[in-house]
Amino acid sequence: MHVYHSQLEVRTHGKGLYEITDQIESKFDKRGIRNGTVTVFVQHTSCSIVIMENADPTARRDLEEFFERLVPEDADYFTHDTEGSDDMPSHIRMVLTRTSETIPIVDGKMQLGTWQGIFLFEHRRALHRRRVFITTIGE
Amino acid sequence: MHVYHSQLEVRTHGKGLYEITDQIESKFDKRGIRNGTVTVFVQHTSCSIVIMENADPTARRDLEEFFERLVPEDADYFTHDTEGSDDMPSHIRMVLTRTSETIPIVDGKMQLGTWQGIFLFEHRRALHRRRVFITTIGE
Amino acid sequence: MHVYHSQLEVRTHGKGLYEITDQIESKFDKRGIRNGTVTVFVQHTSCSIVIMENADPTARRDLEEFFERLVPEDADYFTHDTEGSDDMPSHIRMVLTRTSETIPIVDGKMQLGTWQGIFLFEHRRALHRRRVFITTIGE
Repeated sequence: MHVYHSQLEVRTHGKGLYEITDQIESKFDKRGIRNGTVTVFVQHTSCSIVIMENADPTARRDLEEFFERLVPEDADYFTHDTEGSDDMPSHIRMVLTRTSETIPIVDGKMQLGTWQGIFLFEHRRALHRRRVFITTIGE
Repeated sequence: MHVYHSQLEVRTHGKGLYEITDQIESKFDKRGIRNGTVTVFVQHTSCSIVIMENADPTARRDLEEFFERLVPEDADYFTHDTEGSDDMPSHIRMVLTRTSETIPIVDGKMQLGTWQGIFLFEHRRALHRRRVFITTIGE
Repeated sequence: MHVYHSQLEVRTHGKGLYEITDQIESKFDKRGIRNGTVTVFVQHTSCSIVIMENADPTARRDLEEFFERLVPEDADYFTHDTEGSDDMPSHIRMVLTRTSETIPIVDGKMQLGTWQGIFLFEHRRALHRRRVFITTIGE
């Protein structure tokens, strides 16, 4: 049994879902891990991780629109707004989704279902470089 | 330290919470793992995993009703509706809950609190066979 | 590779976010784990775990207010109310956030981002003693 860490930088250009499934798999594939788990951890509080349907882009657009409506930018009770109107909603949308996700690895492959992809969910409008930590435990 | 994988098939017959606590425990119990963690991972994007109060059925019914209202089937902006009106809401309800959950194991038992049960949360109306991956790391 | 468990008791005095980052780090630091993961698991269904912005208290207050509005205590369809009006909302707020979170450890330190803190999110008004399970896997 071994543990290996690696990092991924994801460049985002505005709100939305960015698929990172292949980048994650390439990170532990190089280490020769055949059997174990991979934990994906995002080191930010204004973006998050989701596993989502990755076949039909309309599903991702509807999801993004749902979050725009559930956590609107113009809520009149927000006081944390030093970085703009997308600041506080970004933290709430992160809390409603995930910071870490753990996926099984069998025979060197993540055991994702047919329609599952791993996405970084960006909640800010400005350009960002996001750091994702990838930890593999296995043999 | 070892890693073991097993799978569980859960047959669902409509929306709602299906408890899978005992089936999960029986999977790693057979392997003789006494000390470690178990990761429960659902391989779908239209159902999810939650740890929920498992004593009073009214708590589960209220939770299901909350999600019916938070993510209504008839939202007029949904465009991803090829599989019916419960299609897009199922993905959103999945994103708002969990795909994976990791639980500690001590002396061969999951360290769930008194009222905690592990549930598959089905978001579709039709009959489904759901695959849950169970990965135990420990000794 | 080894696995170590420890427990943390968090005393809460009403709804809100209680930071537990330092208490978690001190638990695995004593064991000499330099490289691996730590899983934080809360053994309750009326409080939860979130990783949240830990610099500006206004961000936490806005988050708490968002949850008060998203899951109001006076929803007329709730039937699970034996323990009072904050009973059912506490379970829903728990389901919308997290029961477990897994964080990478490198050189004996959790790899949290600059603004990330780990919080117990209390959803009940009364005084509580909350049990958090901390499991470290690593070397």
